[in-house]
Amino acid sequence: MEEEEIFELESGGVLKEVEVAYETYGELNEDGSNAVYICHALTGDAHVAGYSSSEDSKPGWWDDMIGPGKYIDTEKYFVICSNFLGGCSGTTGPSSINPDTGLKYGLDFPLFTIKDMARVHKMFVDKLGIETLLCVIGGSMGGMHAMRIAIDYPEKVKSVVLIATTSHLGAQAIAFDAVGRNAILADRQFNSGHYPEDKGPDRGLGIARMIGHITYLSEEGMRRKFGRALRNSDDYSYDFDPEFSVETYLDHQGRRFVERFDANSYLYITRAMDYFDLEKEFGSLEKAFASVKARFFVVSYSSDWLFPPAHSQEIVDALVSNAKDVSYSNINSHHGHDAFLIETDVIGPYIENFVWATSHKITDSFAYTRNSEPGRSDYEIIQNQFVVSGDVLDLGCGEGELLARLRDVNKCDVLGIDIDTESIGSCLKKGVPAVWADIEDSLESFADGQFDYVVLSKTLQTTKRPKELLKEIVRIGRKAVITFPNFAHISCRAQLFFTGRAPTTSSLPYSWYDSPNVHFFSMKDFEKLCRSVNIRIEQRIVPRTAGTGIVNFLPNLFGREAIYLISRES
Amino acid sequence: MEEEEIFELESGGVLKEVEVAYETYGELNEDGSNAVYICHALTGDAHVAGYSSSEDSKPGWWDDMIGPGKYIDTEKYFVICSNFLGGCSGTTGPSSINPDTGLKYGLDFPLFTIKDMARVHKMFVDKLGIETLLCVIGGSMGGMHAMRIAIDYPEKVKSVVLIATTSHLGAQAIAFDAVGRNAILADRQFNSGHYPEDKGPDRGLGIARMIGHITYLSEEGMRRKFGRALRNSDDYSYDFDPEFSVETYLDHQGRRFVERFDANSYLYITRAMDYFDLEKEFGSLEKAFASVKARFFVVSYSSDWLFPPAHSQEIVDALVSNAKDVSYSNINSHHGHDAFLIETDVIGPYIENFVWATSHKITDSFAYTRNSEPGRSDYEIIQNQFVVSGDVLDLGCGEGELLARLRDVNKCDVLGIDIDTESIGSCLKKGVPAVWADIEDSLESFADGQFDYVVLSKTLQTTKRPKELLKEIVRIGRKAVITFPNFAHISCRAQLFFTGRAPTTSSLPYSWYDSPNVHFFSMKDFEKLCRSVNIRIEQRIVPRTAGTGIVNFLPNLFGREAIYLISRES
Repeated sequence: MEEEEIFELESGGVLKEVEVAYETYGELNEDGSNAVYICHALTGDAHVAGYSSSEDSKPGWWDDMIGPGKYIDTEKYFVICSNFLGGCSGTTGPSSINPDTGLKYGLDFPLFTIKDMARVHKMFVDKLGIETLLCVIGGSMGGMHAMRIAIDYPEKVKSVVLIATTSHLGAQAIAFDAVGRNAILADRQFNSGHYPEDKGPDRGLGIARMIGHITYLSEEGMRRKFGRALRNSDDYSYDFDPEFSVETYLDHQGRRFVERFDANSYLYITRAMDYFDLEKEFGSLEKAFASVKARFFVVSYSSDWLFPPAHSQEIVDALVSNAKDVSYSNINSHHGHDAFLIETDVIGPYIENFVWATSHKITDSFAYTRNSEPGRSDYEIIQNQFVVSGDVLDLGCGEGELLARLRDVNKCDVLGIDIDTESIGSCLKKGVPAVWADIEDSLESFADGQFDYVVLSKTLQTTKRPKELLKEIVRIGRKAVITFPNFAHISCRAQLFFTGRAPTTSSLPYSWYDSPNVHFFSMKDFEKLCRSVNIRIEQRIVPRTAGTGIVNFLPNLFGREAIYLISRES
Repeated sequence: MEEEEIFELESGGVLKEVEVAYETYGELNEDGSNAVYICHALTGDAHVAGYSSSEDSKPGWWDDMIGPGKYIDTEKYFVICSNFLGGCSGTTGPSSINPDTGLKYGLDFPLFTIKDMARVHKMFVDKLGIETLLCVIGGSMGGMHAMRIAIDYPEKVKSVVLIATTSHLGAQAIAFDAVGRNAILADRQFNSGHYPEDKGPDRGLGIARMIGHITYLSEEGMRRKFGRALRNSDDYSYDFDPEFSVETYLDHQGRRFVERFDANSYLYITRAMDYFDLEKEFGSLEKAFASVKARFFVVSYSSDWLFPPAHSQEIVDALVSNAKDVSYSNINSHHGHDAFLIETDVIGPYIENFVWATSHKITDSFAYTRNSEPGRSDYEIIQNQFVVSGDVLDLGCGEGELLARLRDVNKCDVLGIDIDTESIGSCLKKGVPAVWADIEDSLESFADGQFDYVVLSKTLQTTKRPKELLKEIVRIGRKAVITFPNFAHISCRAQLFFTGRAPTTSSLPYSWYDSPNVHFFSMKDFEKLCRSVNIRIEQRIVPRTAGTGIVNFLPNLFGREAIYLISRES
């Protein structure tokens, strides 16, 4: 792409022309609705999949993910990836020729930001004649670009996948970047950025890469992969040459990197990352995401310490606060930040389902099977008698069955929370937005009265601090539906009284020593607690076990479980 | 100290003389029993406390800890600190003059190991005429020296304090060291180690220091201290100069460091750390600590990711496996590896008590007050009827009262485990060895039948997996004492049966929603579980509430709590 007009940058600098290197896979369909745009990470390039030429020794950097029949199926989707502004793999950057001088830009290249880079992405997509992208997917720094596109050009994207990314670098990440740049700047061959192609600041750039590489792996990952193994011998060599396998590996990574990457680009790109700070620009993350229109799927990795899960959670919280359609999963992995490049089989199905659900209208015909979860007769009651319409939050949503019903039948806007990543995957498949979180630790970010209904179904007895949780629930929900097994059912009472043993019943089916339940309480106990914390009980249904009819006579004695509609006393 | 003989090193190299720079504080007492030896960390020196001269701008590096009336009280103890072998603050190292050439050693200095360094410490203490050190205290690399002294010279030390240290560097720590050395070796002023004092590889050494510094702090610590603050302005400067506060700080640290440290020393010392690996040398950590005679106190910090708590736990496990006297605390801190230099008020009281208990024979007159814990009538029964003598492990030992009694009255060898760091502190004060750990997650390292008795007192009902825990307990203990509240006591039964409410009693005093108890069971339940996992019940006592007499009639109905002696079916 050549851009004729002068391109003004946030830093005040200008570029007279911008060329973009890109690759595409698959075919754009007639209405242009199947375009998936991939934003690469710091040291990536446009070659995201397949082999560009017969000389290629290995395929594109995300080849496991993208291709015919793969998770991002190029037989269905038109996949585009471009090298970003300032890169050194074809798109205009510090190693390009400055039209004013006929020499390489070097440090004369103007500083640019993630916003500038996203603008180039957007202008490039315009040039391709694509009005709306079905999905923009970005990992790490690519996620910053994806966010920025969704924020700056809300009409341009229908959905966004953010993987292992952040809305801002923390002090530690800035520090690592600074040390890497220092190593480049200190290299005697750096020569103020004017170095010949074959004699650049290789040792400095190699050191920067080594530091980066450590931050991309996790401590556990490095331990598993290298441990304290020595490369050649059982004994120490007593010198300063690389001898531990991890040293040799990093040394090799550093050497390979300088063959393909430009030191000036490294300086500019890491600075753009350092500067990225949505909160600084918009005042808050919540404001930053206020006008996005895309659906979001956010993924983090448990062992990622460069852009840790907490950073993804902040993004999710901001989207949730804005009542945007967002799903989130925190994937358990020991591969650290690099997990998204390594564990494509874990992330692949999520992305496949998410993109598919974006491109299809999901209806109840396939989203769930009626009564598929056995023993969940409470769902019928909740759906038919308690939650009529409005915004619904389901705490401990499981596979999203109740929410799919409420969405499809009652036309509710729904959101689920669950701590189980597989459940999140099942929800994505149903097109039900679901966020990975501990329900006892994640309600703070919701506003007072944000939901019409909050549902907590058969979960209160497994929580650590039920009193605090109930108070939060009636804060964020105008009404709440709580269901739980009744510990004072006659069979419980009789078992303890007559046999002197901890009761087990159909509603409390576990042995005392392996029960997930940690609190045992009756309807009376629950009602007393509600009174003590100013919770009003609006309605109470005690279903018969058979699922038909209601226990009206002595419900605390004859009810196995109870369903309550509650709200905060005003 | 000058050492006349040739000093042979593990690497095969030799030194013709070794000079040691040191400082002392306080007075050695007549029988030479009050000497406390401090081993400093990588970049420390002998100047551990006070002001050496009127020109000193700040006191020694651990001045908050050491001095008259301080935690290590120089009015009681004779405190010694020496610069270690290979350092650059007075003791022989690469920047010393090579007697063979009359020039600085530089890279002609032989490689040395932690073992060599510990040998110099020991020879130096011999020279001082001190036969036995009351305590050796070392943080970080200093901890490696302290361990090595205790292992190689078991008679030389009565007690050891290991702080934020490790028995081996992990792959990540080796990697950081390697990158730091790379930066020094790549510096054009390094000149193969032959550089003038005022023109060394400053940028390389500065980069190494910056990397090191990042690893000494925690992500949270850096976030709190620096966040994304800019040094001078609200706006970005759009250049590559340090502008974030964290950049400026690291830059400053790097610059200051090169003024006081020698680059060659940095290479040698970090290599010695890399090479330190007790497991490699002895076959296992357990074997490494087999013949130590000292008492140990091990401390780690929750946010230390350089030498993380798991590394300290391995050391503790190895000591425990050898039935050594060991205490351990993992201190909650956001200061990372550097916490031991910063939070002296946290670690100080522990060390004060530990050193004091080492120098005194603790007797029951002050170790505990009889019946000081109200309602613990079970202690009397355990002490008088169940645990006669032998090795005792108390799971959830609290402040160590039961163990102090068993040690002082029944002459048992005792060890406690507790998850509360304050409890560990209280145990240290009583001279009761206690290890910070989750009892459900820490029994693996004990051998079959390692203890004569394992005690689990009023804790089973709070554990997550009581069945698995019981099985582990009877594996590691020849006998075990288990006490718990009886959920089938008549008042529980009656409350649930007649009032339909979760019971609260004197033994189960909590409301259902804020109880720490997560499993509720009766004596019958417990006995059935024991049968199902082949646990033999050897004795059972159901005390009357008043603390006198025993419930013989229908104990599962009239007993509020039960005390069992159990063992594994053979």
